Amino acid sequence: MKVAIMGYGTIGSGVAEVLRVNQEILKKKIGEPVELKYVLDIRESIPEDNDKLINDFSIIENDDEVGLVVETMGGIHPAYEFVKACLEKGKHCVTSNKALVDACGSKLISIAKAHNCNFYFEASVGGGIPVIRTIHHNYAGENLIEITGIMNGTTNFILTNMREKGADFGETLEEAQRLGYAERDPSSDIDGFDTSRKTAILLSMASGNRCRHEDIYTEGIRDISKLDFSYAHELGMSIKLLGSVQQVEDKYFAYVVPMMIPKSDPLFSVDGVFNGIRIVGNCLGTTMLYGMGAGKLPTASAVVSDIIAAVRHKNEFQGIGWSENMLEIEPMGSNAFSYFIRVEGTSSDIEADLREYFLNEDSELKPIVLDNRTDEFALLTDVMFEDDFLDNVKAFEAKTGRRIFHFIRTEKET
Amino acid sequence: MKVAIMGYGTIGSGVAEVLRVNQEILKKKIGEPVELKYVLDIRESIPEDNDKLINDFSIIENDDEVGLVVETMGGIHPAYEFVKACLEKGKHCVTSNKALVDACGSKLISIAKAHNCNFYFEASVGGGIPVIRTIHHNYAGENLIEITGIMNGTTNFILTNMREKGADFGETLEEAQRLGYAERDPSSDIDGFDTSRKTAILLSMASGNRCRHEDIYTEGIRDISKLDFSYAHELGMSIKLLGSVQQVEDKYFAYVVPMMIPKSDPLFSVDGVFNGIRIVGNCLGTTMLYGMGAGKLPTASAVVSDIIAAVRHKNEFQGIGWSENMLEIEPMGSNAFSYFIRVEGTSSDIEADLREYFLNEDSELKPIVLDNRTDEFALLTDVMFEDDFLDNVKAFEAKTGRRIFHFIRTEKET
Repeated sequence: MKVAIMGYGTIGSGVAEVLRVNQEILKKKIGEPVELKYVLDIRESIPEDNDKLINDFSIIENDDEVGLVVETMGGIHPAYEFVKACLEKGKHCVTSNKALVDACGSKLISIAKAHNCNFYFEASVGGGIPVIRTIHHNYAGENLIEITGIMNGTTNFILTNMREKGADFGETLEEAQRLGYAERDPSSDIDGFDTSRKTAILLSMASGNRCRHEDIYTEGIRDISKLDFSYAHELGMSIKLLGSVQQVEDKYFAYVVPMMIPKSDPLFSVDGVFNGIRIVGNCLGTTMLYGMGAGKLPTASAVVSDIIAAVRHKNEFQGIGWSENMLEIEPMGSNAFSYFIRVEGTSSDIEADLREYFLNEDSELKPIVLDNRTDEFALLTDVMFEDDFLDNVKAFEAKTGRRIFHFIRTEKET
Repeated sequence: MKVAIMGYGTIGSGVAEVLRVNQEILKKKIGEPVELKYVLDIRESIPEDNDKLINDFSIIENDDEVGLVVETMGGIHPAYEFVKACLEKGKHCVTSNKALVDACGSKLISIAKAHNCNFYFEASVGGGIPVIRTIHHNYAGENLIEITGIMNGTTNFILTNMREKGADFGETLEEAQRLGYAERDPSSDIDGFDTSRKTAILLSMASGNRCRHEDIYTEGIRDISKLDFSYAHELGMSIKLLGSVQQVEDKYFAYVVPMMIPKSDPLFSVDGVFNGIRIVGNCLGTTMLYGMGAGKLPTASAVVSDIIAAVRHKNEFQGIGWSENMLEIEPMGSNAFSYFIRVEGTSSDIEADLREYFLNEDSELKPIVLDNRTDEFALLTDVMFEDDFLDNVKAFEAKTGRRIFHFIRTEKET
């Protein structure tokens, strides 16, 4: 199989490296060599593969020898136009570009189908974690109740450091930027948009229909403080940025929010730049896939797994993907959580109000007080719908004159 | 696709249940219904599928409508003869039977190939953990340096309980037997043979050649004591029964042994009846797959994933498996470990000997003493080859007159 790589940045050059380093293994496993013919990039020279460097896309498009194209340019344009043109010529396309998959996936999948080739995107979610293909192959017969993941290494690095060092968000972000784990403009990571795109792709895989990441309720980690982690520590919990997809009968729920999670959650121990994706099936029970969610070679390795699949399904559309039908996501307010809340003052004179707004009748009131503070305390509420919770916060504040300083959604220890 | 189930025990009846409960999802995902036609079993009646119960294998063998046979009888005979006969008729066969896959896998794979059908065995290792297909699909282009797993729920339940409750092996085994997590004759689990069979299957998947589990060095957990866990706790480590496969250049290493592992190992948090399999690739880095390694429905779910694959590859041998060439496993003595050793007496008057036999020149001697004991202390040795270590233990005991009471191989914190 002769291939072209479009975009020789971190991932594109990583793909060239994996193809070079593991060429013998690849040849043995798939029965033929994978040969890099072109690298499309605007730079003037590249190490190792300089003789393959071109800057005119039409050379790839019009070369019938090229059976597969790797898109690692990033962004939507001209990635979309290039991939579309290649698929229309019957060339398989594989990408690590989650923005492209999220925005144009269903269209590209249907073009691939029409031209009997494949559009693969294993690397677009979770880097080296085998999540797309596992959902397609292993869990196709499952009613997938839930997929919840830590899918952004930057935010997980920051949150892990805040927990371990007792540091605040701002200084930890600066350290992450110094170390190259966070970008100079970190918004896409820390405001949750990267996780939101990946969540949209998982929702599409699980439901079989397309969705827009803009329709997924998304909160980032800017408001998580050192103090929140002190309470979490006291509770034996941790705080993670989670993207979650849930199915209840034929309704779909999805959100990206920081959550407080207990030790019993397998995502609890997913630390630093590692990612983890928990998948719950109605028969399967709970599984978790763990690995490097980003990084040059792990992501390139996932791209190469797509190249292998394309060689193995050379003349056949494999059907990994979803339809062009639009999925409706249930509103955020209809999700139910237990909430960690930080309340102004002490609990002693407002016990009845706390009970009324945040606890079930038979629940015990267990305020958490740090270092004998009197300016605030915390509480885990019982499970309630988000709409009700937000109403109750307002009603509680109005009635008691006490502020709820901050809340974090939680999973209670099961 | 019309299917027959051979053996209606826990897993077989679980497969029937998953096919029943998730029939609509299956039909939607694979484009046709999966219809249970026969259940082969010696019992006289079964719930739910009684009208399908037969006790004559030749009915399945000779019914051309049956395109796929599920083997969940266990044991090697007559499972082997039945599966062979079905494959020779071009019927796909799927199994959860690790003894069959370990002993006859390469033969059955080559019969399937000759008759252009498939022999699948996802459920034979790790239950609902998608390990076989992940190695075949996602990691086919990787140089797999290591696959190490907690693959037996019974032993992991026992070890987790010993750690959490500070209990000894005997009483914990009895509790596991009372709860139904351990069998009355627990040898296959606690002496490591179950893990050894699964390790052999993973070694075959990784190497592409067949091997015998009898050739894999195997130790169980009978000798792990409460005291070992006290030391492990002191060291911030845990003790797990691991099956491990490693590749160094073209040499293969494999063993099943209890190991002391640090918190940084993703297997550290795999507790209770859960299983976890860590896979390390040369480009991929470290990944870990986690889930229910046994149990009726999780295992049945993995069997159903094989049924899906067979429907999707109806007229095509997919090539998941290995050759009939025999793999040579390197001798146990050529593996290198750090060792946790428990030594008689105190360290004060034998420091030079401890250094000579167990530490590198520039290493610091750090004896671990529990509760001011003088009858024994412990030590983590530097990394050495197992052959050298065993020689050194003998030499040390001869020279000092002190016994090494017990040792456990360890991974040092990285």
